[in-house]
Amino acid sequence: MHRAAPLAGLLLFLWLVHPLAAQQAVPTHPLDGLQSAEYWAVYETLRDAGRLDSTTAFSEVTLREPPKAEVLSWKPGGRFRREARVTLRKGIRTFEAVVDVPRRRVLSFDSMPGMQAPVDFGEYEEVGTAIKADPQVRAALARRGITDLATIRCGGGPAGYFGTAEHKDHVVLRGSCSDRFGTYNSWSRQIPGLTILVDRATKKVLRVVDVGTGRPGRDSYDFTDEAVGAADATHPLVVSQPMGPGFTRQGGEVSWQHWKFHVRVDPRVGLVVSRVRWVDGDRERSVLYQGHLSEIFVPYMDSTTGWYDRVFLDAGEYAAEGMAESLEPGIDCPAHASYIDAQVMTGRGTPMIKRRVACLFERASGQVAWRHGEENSESSAGRPARDLVLRMVATVGNYDYLFDWVFQQNGSLRVAVGATGILEVKPVPSRMIAMDQGARADAVAPRDDAFGRLLAPGVVGVNHDHFFSFRLDLDVDGTSNSLAVDSLARVRLPDEHPRRSLWTVQERIARTEKGAQLDMNMHAPALWRVISADTRGPLGYATSYEIAAGHNAMSLLADDDWSQRRAGFIRHHLWVTPYSATERYAAGDYPTFSNGEFGLPAWTRADRRIEATDIVAWYTLGFHHVPRAEDWPVMPTAWHDFELRPFDFFPQNPALGLPRTP
Amino acid sequence: MHRAAPLAGLLLFLWLVHPLAAQQAVPTHPLDGLQSAEYWAVYETLRDAGRLDSTTAFSEVTLREPPKAEVLSWKPGGRFRREARVTLRKGIRTFEAVVDVPRRRVLSFDSMPGMQAPVDFGEYEEVGTAIKADPQVRAALARRGITDLATIRCGGGPAGYFGTAEHKDHVVLRGSCSDRFGTYNSWSRQIPGLTILVDRATKKVLRVVDVGTGRPGRDSYDFTDEAVGAADATHPLVVSQPMGPGFTRQGGEVSWQHWKFHVRVDPRVGLVVSRVRWVDGDRERSVLYQGHLSEIFVPYMDSTTGWYDRVFLDAGEYAAEGMAESLEPGIDCPAHASYIDAQVMTGRGTPMIKRRVACLFERASGQVAWRHGEENSESSAGRPARDLVLRMVATVGNYDYLFDWVFQQNGSLRVAVGATGILEVKPVPSRMIAMDQGARADAVAPRDDAFGRLLAPGVVGVNHDHFFSFRLDLDVDGTSNSLAVDSLARVRLPDEHPRRSLWTVQERIARTEKGAQLDMNMHAPALWRVISADTRGPLGYATSYEIAAGHNAMSLLADDDWSQRRAGFIRHHLWVTPYSATERYAAGDYPTFSNGEFGLPAWTRADRRIEATDIVAWYTLGFHHVPRAEDWPVMPTAWHDFELRPFDFFPQNPALGLPRTP
Repeated sequence: MHRAAPLAGLLLFLWLVHPLAAQQAVPTHPLDGLQSAEYWAVYETLRDAGRLDSTTAFSEVTLREPPKAEVLSWKPGGRFRREARVTLRKGIRTFEAVVDVPRRRVLSFDSMPGMQAPVDFGEYEEVGTAIKADPQVRAALARRGITDLATIRCGGGPAGYFGTAEHKDHVVLRGSCSDRFGTYNSWSRQIPGLTILVDRATKKVLRVVDVGTGRPGRDSYDFTDEAVGAADATHPLVVSQPMGPGFTRQGGEVSWQHWKFHVRVDPRVGLVVSRVRWVDGDRERSVLYQGHLSEIFVPYMDSTTGWYDRVFLDAGEYAAEGMAESLEPGIDCPAHASYIDAQVMTGRGTPMIKRRVACLFERASGQVAWRHGEENSESSAGRPARDLVLRMVATVGNYDYLFDWVFQQNGSLRVAVGATGILEVKPVPSRMIAMDQGARADAVAPRDDAFGRLLAPGVVGVNHDHFFSFRLDLDVDGTSNSLAVDSLARVRLPDEHPRRSLWTVQERIARTEKGAQLDMNMHAPALWRVISADTRGPLGYATSYEIAAGHNAMSLLADDDWSQRRAGFIRHHLWVTPYSATERYAAGDYPTFSNGEFGLPAWTRADRRIEATDIVAWYTLGFHHVPRAEDWPVMPTAWHDFELRPFDFFPQNPALGLPRTP
Repeated sequence: MHRAAPLAGLLLFLWLVHPLAAQQAVPTHPLDGLQSAEYWAVYETLRDAGRLDSTTAFSEVTLREPPKAEVLSWKPGGRFRREARVTLRKGIRTFEAVVDVPRRRVLSFDSMPGMQAPVDFGEYEEVGTAIKADPQVRAALARRGITDLATIRCGGGPAGYFGTAEHKDHVVLRGSCSDRFGTYNSWSRQIPGLTILVDRATKKVLRVVDVGTGRPGRDSYDFTDEAVGAADATHPLVVSQPMGPGFTRQGGEVSWQHWKFHVRVDPRVGLVVSRVRWVDGDRERSVLYQGHLSEIFVPYMDSTTGWYDRVFLDAGEYAAEGMAESLEPGIDCPAHASYIDAQVMTGRGTPMIKRRVACLFERASGQVAWRHGEENSESSAGRPARDLVLRMVATVGNYDYLFDWVFQQNGSLRVAVGATGILEVKPVPSRMIAMDQGARADAVAPRDDAFGRLLAPGVVGVNHDHFFSFRLDLDVDGTSNSLAVDSLARVRLPDEHPRRSLWTVQERIARTEKGAQLDMNMHAPALWRVISADTRGPLGYATSYEIAAGHNAMSLLADDDWSQRRAGFIRHHLWVTPYSATERYAAGDYPTFSNGEFGLPAWTRADRRIEATDIVAWYTLGFHHVPRAEDWPVMPTAWHDFELRPFDFFPQNPALGLPRTP
C-alpha cells in the first residue's frame, strides 16, 4: 500500500486548478459518478489522513450526492460539491468515511460497530486459499478420489445470519469448492455435500461439514461457441440509423424527444437515473428525481446443509467492483447502441475503468403508439412508436440480470428486469427420475429433486425466488407529493336495479408510512399514484404518476424466518417513505450478516408523515423460479417489469402528434 | 336477393373439376378459411335448398373444421372436406346450417329457439332509422335545441340481459344518438341521457328514456393528421431485410426457424393459429393444435340509465363482417411486414375481400436470448434474439385491440393483447372538477365523475373492465395430455433448523374439470402445465408446456349479477375441458341476449374427466381500466400478455446455438 500515483496526482492537480482545461473527463454534473482522478484523490486523502494501513480494503466507494436542494438549484456550468462515501474494512471492522474530494478533506470517519462490509473478491480468494490448505478439506476431497487440487477452486461468501451460537460468536462465511476440470461452466461441478465455514475475522476454517460422498460428474455443460456452435445467420434483419441516434448525450445528461434525464453507473446499484423530466417547449416538468435498483434478495428453497443458508442479498452483500458488467456489443445491446463507461474503486484502493457498463439505444419494431379505425375514415389513424432503452447487465455469480429503463413516447417509463445466466445447481447421484405420478406426492423419503428439479443427469436446479427493490424518488411536478391509493371496490346496487353490482374508485391519501405499505391483491385491486400536492391539471385533478405493477409475487417465507426478516422489504410490494438522503438501500446499508430488519422495516417503524412532502416510493418486484430443463445450461431470459405511468399528468395523450414513421 | 353469380359459379366449377388448375386461390389446407368461391357456393346451396328469403341475414359464416383426427392424418396434397357453419337470422329467429361446400349440400338446418344471432350492421342502421323517425326522440332532440337531424346518427346494439319483464317479453336493443357535426371522433358527442329501447323483432321503438337535458359540447377531439399534425421524422430508425423475411408462407402454412404453424383469419374470432409444431430435423413435435381468441367481455361500471347495460360480449354479440380489421402498413405493422388477406361473408350473403387482416414480421431489437459473463472468459457469452410476430387488430366500435402471437426462439409462444382506440365516454355538464381532497370520499350526491373520470371538459371516461378468453387446444407431444398443477406451498422446518421455512412444489394432476378451474393467487401460487400423458423427456419427467400468466385481474362483479353469469368464463383464470369440436366460444355460441351461463360454466358442470386425454385449456386475461386524461382522445396502447412456455419439453435451452447476429 501507500503506493504513489504520480500521473493521477498530476491530473488531479490540473483538474483542481483548471477544471475545464484538463482533457480528461471531469464531472460536469453534481450527480456524475466518481471518476478516476477523484478515486485517486479519495485514496490519497485517506492515506494522508492516516486512515489506511496494509490491511485496509476499500469495500465501497460511491458518490455521496449533494443535498437534493443543491442539485435542484444547480445550473449547468455552476459549481457543485464532490464528496465520496467510503466503506473501509479492516478484518471484520467496518469504517465509513466521507471525503470532500476537491478539498481533499476527510469530513467524517466513523467506526460502524455491528456492521459488516460487503465481501470482496480479495476476501473470496483468501477464504479459498485457507479452505484448500485445510487438512480436513483435503481429507474430504481425498475420500472422493480428488488429490490433484490444481483445478479445484474454493471460495467463500456471505451465508446469511440465523442467530445460532456460532453466528453470535463469529462472522461466518460459507465456503465451497468446485472442480473446474474440462469445463468453463463449473457451476455444475460443486463438490457435493462439502461445506466449509470460515471465520471472516481470521480467515480460518471454523468447521468442515461433510455430508456428501460423491464427486461431481464429468459432463460438460458449456455453452461456448466451441461447445454449442453458432448457426449461420438467417435472412438478415438490419437495424440502422443512417443519421445516427435520435438522442444526445453530454456526459451523463441525455436528451431524447420530450425526455431529459441524467444517468450514472453507480458501483453498488448500477444505473442511477436522475432528474427525469418531460420537456414541453420551455417548460421542464419533473417526473422522477431519482430511480435505481436498491437491493436484490434471492433465497433458495433447500433445507439441506450447504443450501439452507443460500439467502443472498445480492446488491449489498458483495463488493463486486461495480455491479454493472461490460456489455458485449451486438449481443447484450443491438449493433446500433451507444455505450457508457464508468470507473469503480477496486478493493485495493485503485480505480478501474469499466468499459460499456450501460448502453443506450432506440427501439422500434412494430410497436403501435395508438391507433383507431373509424367507419367514417378511409383508413385507420395511428402512429408507430419508438422507445429509448437504457440498459445495464449485472452478473451476480451465476445469475445475470438485465435492467432496462425504457423511456416511452406516451410519457411512461418502464422498468424491466430480465433474468438469465446459469442456475444455482447441486450435483446429485440421480441421473434420471423414475417418475410415478401417483407415488410422487406421497413420497416420504427425501428425493434428489425434493427441493428442485433434475435439469441434466446428476444436476438439480434448486427452487428459489428473486426479489428486487427499486427506489423511486418520484417528484411529480415538484417535490411536494402524496401517495393516492385508488381502491376499486365492489358496490352492490339496490335490489330493484337490474344490475346487481359494479365497482367504483375510492381514493385515499396515505397520511403516514404504514398507510402506504401495500400489497397487490386481485380481490381488492388499487391504483398507486404519486400525486402532486400543489399542481393540478386543467380538469382539476392533481397531476400524478401511477406505479403500475406488472406480474409479481409474494414471499412465501414465514415472518419469523431470519431471511425474511433480513430482507424485510419483500413483505410489501409498495413502501413510501419521506425523502431522506441516507435511506437508499432497502435492506440497509450493511446487509452482510445483518441480524434484523434494517432498511425499510426499520425506517418506517416511526410511521412518519408522507403527505404533501418529498416522498420516495419503493417497489418490490418478485418472482418464483421452479427450474426446468430449458433453463440449462444457460437460461432463456425471463422478463418482469413495472411502469411509471402518467395519470392526469398530461392534459391528453402526449403521443398524438408523433411522426408517421417510427 | 337471389342474384345470380355467374363468374363465381364458373370459378367454383373449375375449382371442383380441376382443383389445381384454377389460378384463383383455393384452399390447400383443411384449416384454411372459407374463400370467395366457397362463400358463393354456400349462398347458392342455401338458396337452391329454399332456405333463404328476402328477410334472411347471414349473421355468421365460418369454416366448420374437419374432425381433428382427419386434420391430424391429412398429408399435403391429400383431399379434405370443406364445410361451412352458417348462422342465419330471420327477424329474431335464428337458424344454424351446415353446408358441404364442394358437394353443395345442406347437411343440417336447425332452428335455434331461444338463441339470438349477433347484431349486424344492417340491423344497426335499421334501428337507427327507426329511432330517428320516432316522434318522442325528435321531441327529445328538439328540447335540446337539435332540429337539424342530418348530422345526428342513431343506432342500436345488444343491451345485455337483466331478466326484467321487458327482457322476458322482447329482445331489446339499446339505441342512442350522437351528433357528428364538426368532428370525426363522435364518441364524445352522444346525446346525453337519451336512451331508446328497440324491439329487435319489429325494429320498433319500445320505449324512450330521457333523463338528460343538455346537448353534447362542440369541442372537437379529433386525432386526424389535420387535427393533431404529425411531427417531422426524427433520426430514422430503419429496419430492413435485404434478403427478405426469414419465414416462408405458403397459403396458411408458415415456417420460421424451428416453428411451423397454420394460420387463418376467422370472421368471428380473427386469428386462428393451428398445428403449431416445433421441428427438429425430421421430427415434428406438436405443441398446440389450435389457439385463438374465444370471447371478449367489457362491462362498464356505471349504474345510470343508458350505461348500466353496457356489458359487451364483443366477439359474439356483433356480426362485424370479420373481427380482424385492415392493417395500415408502417403503422399497425412495421414497414417490412408481410400481410395476409381474407374473405368474409357480409350480412347480405355476398363475400367481401378484406385486405391485410393479419401481418407477419420478424422483430429484433436488443432482445437477449440468453447471456452469461464468467470470470474465466474474456467476454460474456450470449446470443441476440429474434421473434416472429403474427398480428391482427380488432376494432370493436370505439376500442381497438391488437392481438400478437409471438413465436420465440426459446420455444415460448407469447400471446399479447394491446388495447388502444377511443374510450367509451359520456357527456356531462362539468367542465372541471373542483377537487377537494377531504370532501371527496365523503361526498354523498352523485357527481359527474362518480363512475369514471373527467378526461376533457364535458367528457367523462367511464370505468370498465376487459376480459379475454383464449381457447388453447394444447397438444403437447400428441393429443393425450393432462393438466399438472404445481403448487408452491410453504413448509415449516423443525424448530431446531436454523431456517424456519421454505416452499416446495406439490404436483397434482387435475382429474376432472372442476379440479382445473383455477385462479391466480399470490399467496398460493402454482404453475399450470399441460403435460403429455405418454411422453417423457430424457430425465423422466413428462414433457409439458406451462401456461404462464402475466399481470391479470379478477372480476369484481357479484356472482348474482346477470353480466357476471352471462360471461361466466371470467370467474376463473384457467379452465380445462376435454376436447369437443363444438365447444369453441367461452360464453357460448350465441351470447347475444343470452340469459344464463352458456359456454364454460355450462360445459364443465358435468365435471368431465380431463386426465390423459385430449384437453383444451382456456385462459382468461383481464384488466381493470380507470380512465385518465392521457387516454383521451385516443389511448396509448396498453399491453397485457401470457406465455405458453416449454417446461421439460426440450432436453435443454433450445436457443443455445443461435446465430451470433439476430
